[in-house]
Amino acid sequence: MTEQGTSRMEAFSDGIFAIAATLLVLEFGVSSGHKLDHELLHLWPAYLAYVTSFVTIGIIWMNHHHTVSLIGRVDRTMLFVNNLLLLTVAFLPFPTKLVGDYLRHDGEKAAALAYAATLVIMAVIHQVWWRYASRNRRLIADGVPDSALRAVDRAYAPGVPMYGAVFVLAFFSPLAAVALTFAIAAFYLPSAALFDR
Amino acid sequence: MTEQGTSRMEAFSDGIFAIAATLLVLEFGVSSGHKLDHELLHLWPAYLAYVTSFVTIGIIWMNHHHTVSLIGRVDRTMLFVNNLLLLTVAFLPFPTKLVGDYLRHDGEKAAALAYAATLVIMAVIHQVWWRYASRNRRLIADGVPDSALRAVDRAYAPGVPMYGAVFVLAFFSPLAAVALTFAIAAFYLPSAALFDR
Amino acid sequence: MTEQGTSRMEAFSDGIFAIAATLLVLEFGVSSGHKLDHELLHLWPAYLAYVTSFVTIGIIWMNHHHTVSLIGRVDRTMLFVNNLLLLTVAFLPFPTKLVGDYLRHDGEKAAALAYAATLVIMAVIHQVWWRYASRNRRLIADGVPDSALRAVDRAYAPGVPMYGAVFVLAFFSPLAAVALTFAIAAFYLPSAALFDR
Amino acid sequence: MTEQGTSRMEAFSDGIFAIAATLLVLEFGVSSGHKLDHELLHLWPAYLAYVTSFVTIGIIWMNHHHTVSLIGRVDRTMLFVNNLLLLTVAFLPFPTKLVGDYLRHDGEKAAALAYAATLVIMAVIHQVWWRYASRNRRLIADGVPDSALRAVDRAYAPGVPMYGAVFVLAFFSPLAAVALTFAIAAFYLPSAALFDR
Repeated sequence: MTEQGTSRMEAFSDGIFAIAATLLVLEFGVSSGHKLDHELLHLWPAYLAYVTSFVTIGIIWMNHHHTVSLIGRVDRTMLFVNNLLLLTVAFLPFPTKLVGDYLRHDGEKAAALAYAATLVIMAVIHQVWWRYASRNRRLIADGVPDSALRAVDRAYAPGVPMYGAVFVLAFFSPLAAVALTFAIAAFYLPSAALFDR
Repeated sequence: MTEQGTSRMEAFSDGIFAIAATLLVLEFGVSSGHKLDHELLHLWPAYLAYVTSFVTIGIIWMNHHHTVSLIGRVDRTMLFVNNLLLLTVAFLPFPTKLVGDYLRHDGEKAAALAYAATLVIMAVIHQVWWRYASRNRRLIADGVPDSALRAVDRAYAPGVPMYGAVFVLAFFSPLAAVALTFAIAAFYLPSAALFDR
Repeated sequence: MTEQGTSRMEAFSDGIFAIAATLLVLEFGVSSGHKLDHELLHLWPAYLAYVTSFVTIGIIWMNHHHTVSLIGRVDRTMLFVNNLLLLTVAFLPFPTKLVGDYLRHDGEKAAALAYAATLVIMAVIHQVWWRYASRNRRLIADGVPDSALRAVDRAYAPGVPMYGAVFVLAFFSPLAAVALTFAIAAFYLPSAALFDR
Repeated sequence: MTEQGTSRMEAFSDGIFAIAATLLVLEFGVSSGHKLDHELLHLWPAYLAYVTSFVTIGIIWMNHHHTVSLIGRVDRTMLFVNNLLLLTVAFLPFPTKLVGDYLRHDGEKAAALAYAATLVIMAVIHQVWWRYASRNRRLIADGVPDSALRAVDRAYAPGVPMYGAVFVLAFFSPLAAVALTFAIAAFYLPSAALFDR
């Protein structure tokens, strides 16, 4: 199996991240029949969902980019797993729209569960992606110190449990689940140990 | 006729592939009037269509990219055929939405046939694209061994018959036709002989 | 006024061209209430409009790219005119959708006129864009022969009259106007003298 | 905290700018029930909003790009603030659609206020973005003269007051507020002192 450099995987991934983030805006819509100022104020769940998903995608992009910089080559399996990761990122505008439309209405639990489930799946695939690349330094570039790999291990480790907690919380309080997702994006992820080595 | 390098064709093609894959998410929609959890479970044809098309586009992008790496220059005819190929890739979100909306409902045969027809046309144009470039090594870079060209020939050869089989199958079972498309994307394409040389 | 290289203008323009072409697919939609196979066959104006606009954008991208390769630097005026050109390219999905929805129905003349008017404005701005760059070799790279500039002059000259003819024809036969636009994209533009120097 | 070069931030930002500008076209829609020629003429608020937002995004992209060229490295805080800036740019298609749909109808004040508020927030974040990077030359590349930084200071300074004036004006005349935004994009921004050093 031939191995290639990472530049093409990066370019394709960058495109998907940027487009998925920008498509989030299409979730917004106002229904006629009400006064517009009233409508715009009552859209706050949509604003919350938009900001949460946009910041989350931005930070996952940052992490993806940082991690790819440690990778020296890709093989076909890596490209395939990367495609699965992008598949979940590109899917995010749909559950984001569900949260924006249904939070504080009938169906909010299903919407928050769909949103959390997407994030859990994304975190799991991101873990698989990283473990495939880093196991026995399979695809790691020469010269990258082990400490840099351990830093990524530590930074990625909380992803699945955290989004799992969001999923569980959604059963009890959909709003709290979305708020926790926002807090993760605003406070945890930017401070993650990823770059601190 | 002036010949050029391939970098611009690659950049434009990469953009179209990434955008088409990301636009697939716009196929999802829920109608009001039902409970959301019920709606989300009954969207499974849309999930199946989304995953199938996303993975298919991802793999065609991988193949396109690999093949372009063998090409040393492009002429105007090649750019034109490449545009036709991109035209079919960029069209894919529409039949994908049809499959997602109509599978297991009235009209599923027409939806599956439209989906399969798009894939057949895409495979035919991809063949023309490759044959134009490789015939007598017209646009092939110097130093590429003939064995690499034969490997692409072998990898591309099953495309039209396979998607032709999907098309025929759609007359009898639209669901089986979509499932076969998924299986091709999940099992055949990743294992194709393309990179094995 | 500081002058810069062309690489950023190219990257931004490439993005707009690729996204505008890919968004064309969003024009497609089927209304419920009819049988899907019947609907898909009666969408032929939408297919015609899609292919025409996609190929047109692809060729304008090719021409833009070729011409930029003759340009050695950009100034703020050039960037501004380039933004106006991109504004019309990015607008094309809307009149394309109008043609797809209205051709052979009430309103087809207005739809075809809107489509033709967009193309006329695009061709006019493309002329201004080129004349600003090439007048007295203002932004032309050193070493580009005058014959290359004359070739672009000749290739761009028929744009405005041709799309002007489409506009006039739309008053008499909207279908013929769209067919002529398709013919220009399929036959004239690819054979334009642009690359033949 | 590790610092990185700016190329990835630029590539991601370029993608968001280009996609947000191109998504603006999705604001256009015609309702059935009226004659199409009548509809298209009465869409002028949508045309005005489209041109205003497209040109505004184009110029912000130019300014962003110019300013990034003065920056030699980014840190995590800078990436985070940049993401917030992109979040507001990517949001612009929504208030643009509101202006297009509501100007000269009930609700026009709310639409114009939403549009102006988005631009004010964008201008504020752009100021924060620049001040974080330039304070004590924190992220400025070596060799950039202070006069270049002062030129950016002067060019960015009027942003918040100008869009603040648009916001205030929207209370009295929504149409005048949109027209002022257009005038800023067409006359002020292109002549800004940014590049004149």
